[in-house]
Amino acid sequence: MSTAVKPKVHNYSAGPCILPQQVFEQASQAVLDFQGTGMSILEMSHRSKPIEEVMNKARDLVKELLGAPDHYEVVFLGGGASMGFHMVPLNYQKPGGKSAYANTGEWATRAVKEGRLAGETLVVASSEDKNFNYIPKGFAIPDDVDYFHITTNNTIFGTQYKAFPKTKVPMLCDMSSDIFSRPVNVSDFALIYGGAQKNMGPAGATVYLFDPEKLGHTGRKLSPMMDLKNHAAKDSMYNTPPVYAVYVSMLTLEWLKSIGGVAEAEKRNQAKAELLYGTIDRLPIFEGTTAVEDRSAMNATFVLKDSALEPAFDALWKEAGISGIRGHRSVGGYRASMYNALPIDSVKVLTEVMEEFAKKNG
Amino acid sequence: MSTAVKPKVHNYSAGPCILPQQVFEQASQAVLDFQGTGMSILEMSHRSKPIEEVMNKARDLVKELLGAPDHYEVVFLGGGASMGFHMVPLNYQKPGGKSAYANTGEWATRAVKEGRLAGETLVVASSEDKNFNYIPKGFAIPDDVDYFHITTNNTIFGTQYKAFPKTKVPMLCDMSSDIFSRPVNVSDFALIYGGAQKNMGPAGATVYLFDPEKLGHTGRKLSPMMDLKNHAAKDSMYNTPPVYAVYVSMLTLEWLKSIGGVAEAEKRNQAKAELLYGTIDRLPIFEGTTAVEDRSAMNATFVLKDSALEPAFDALWKEAGISGIRGHRSVGGYRASMYNALPIDSVKVLTEVMEEFAKKNG
Repeated sequence: MSTAVKPKVHNYSAGPCILPQQVFEQASQAVLDFQGTGMSILEMSHRSKPIEEVMNKARDLVKELLGAPDHYEVVFLGGGASMGFHMVPLNYQKPGGKSAYANTGEWATRAVKEGRLAGETLVVASSEDKNFNYIPKGFAIPDDVDYFHITTNNTIFGTQYKAFPKTKVPMLCDMSSDIFSRPVNVSDFALIYGGAQKNMGPAGATVYLFDPEKLGHTGRKLSPMMDLKNHAAKDSMYNTPPVYAVYVSMLTLEWLKSIGGVAEAEKRNQAKAELLYGTIDRLPIFEGTTAVEDRSAMNATFVLKDSALEPAFDALWKEAGISGIRGHRSVGGYRASMYNALPIDSVKVLTEVMEEFAKKNG
Repeated sequence: MSTAVKPKVHNYSAGPCILPQQVFEQASQAVLDFQGTGMSILEMSHRSKPIEEVMNKARDLVKELLGAPDHYEVVFLGGGASMGFHMVPLNYQKPGGKSAYANTGEWATRAVKEGRLAGETLVVASSEDKNFNYIPKGFAIPDDVDYFHITTNNTIFGTQYKAFPKTKVPMLCDMSSDIFSRPVNVSDFALIYGGAQKNMGPAGATVYLFDPEKLGHTGRKLSPMMDLKNHAAKDSMYNTPPVYAVYVSMLTLEWLKSIGGVAEAEKRNQAKAELLYGTIDRLPIFEGTTAVEDRSAMNATFVLKDSALEPAFDALWKEAGISGIRGHRSVGGYRASMYNALPIDSVKVLTEVMEEFAKKNG
């Protein structure tokens, strides 16, 4: 075992993002010698017993941590949520049928685009009119669509659903950037999917958690690679899975379980969000960019009211060892991503920098 | 840096498979601290400068090591070659057009299946009549198909093309299990693709090397996720790429370059293959399962003529620290996969075990 040091960087990256330090240590060791086998995890057959155990354990942890109904199934694939955007209509929309989407940002827009390539796609709610700075509410979802799709957290724009729409049709959701950050009622969703690279693990794996009873009713003839049912039937081994990314996800979920699961994660994320948003609201030189009631606990977006101050502010936070808080080009300003593994100490460092900067420039 | 030990296992796994020990050491270190950044490679944004450099270097090494023409492009995606089977007809076959495939095994059969889902697909050559134990030769490829597809090496059945068919139509190939094992004339192929988990790296990344001039002529409206041209235009960052799998691939390709590239790899692979096949042929209790002229230098398949001896033989090679030589269920017997990183010393250990076993049981 190597001598690991505490991370020197306050990592606010929007994803791939910070993971627990103990995960890095275990994941590093497994690359040299996996569980005393004398082999690296990277050279082990995906059909070997130790790797099958990793896959099974990762699957079980997803269901356990989210409190999923027993009959729900878990699949790990490559390709990211973007592949999910593509697979959603193929798996859930009948040829000649309709789907409904809520458009709350860049990734939701991409999901809509994939829906439109597959068939009739209604955008039943959108916050595009205000550059996606809020979550639409109170909209109607037709009963005659094959499914309704939402993006629970909008990484780029910093908004998050605090309550989910009610609908009689299967609700499918891209939960990439807030999965495992809070309890959700899994049975409200026919499908929850997301790229691993936020709260679950590194880039390279995507998780699909779904009700198998709501799958396979479209009559479409699917490629086996596009067919969620096929991947589930083959235990995510229809073809070689992204073994290491699933392994690091498993380690991250073990860590989450050890700290108290999604309930404890939510508490910590709430505390971090309150500290940062409180600071933004208290200091007049800063301003949040989203509707207050829709503020994301994962990605806090804000600006300096006087953008001419940005270079001076940038110098200060960089000096403090902060990384990754420049906003996405479509919003500008700043975005502090506070995923599960970001310690509140990192938020204290950032808010202290903000206080100091406000004092000098207020 | 941790104190790494030599691998204790002679790893004949068919893939994921052995990689160079120095790659494991570098890859392990990067998980703790990537290039002195104080961050794990697993937590770094794919759009950060160091990761962009990894992606660029990996791309450049693919082209350099294979001697690809300058205008060829490289894309890294997830999903494995199986996703490639699905993308090939979408990217190369006109609606209403035809494609041609040579079927030389399990993976070629899967590629054909994907072709058929997309349109008219001719199997112009097949070795299915003899359980895929040879490579068909001298067959005709129609001039009016949109492309011709082959699988250069058949992992399960242990056969390999020693020369490639000549054709006037774009030749596309799944080279998953022998890419980087020998020189090839890249310009003979409009597309070379393959899962990383043999000679290139760990599971989780897939490489596509292609002539962009031969892409984008089908008139199909493609999902951006299925569109090779889109992924190339976005430098494999249309969505988050499988960063770590590409990084380990980059390290493996750096190692390959350092030992002398694909020409040196071919020499070493030839020497290993001659040693093992020579032993199989010399010892009457063993028998190769494929046509001698089509024997794969990557995957040597053989049986004990008396299968009742298998348990005793299995005990002996396991005792010698050999792993992963049981054959695939569709062939039975044994399969020794000898990818680039397998040292000839591991083959010596295996052949000594075979000699010893033959002496006792001959």
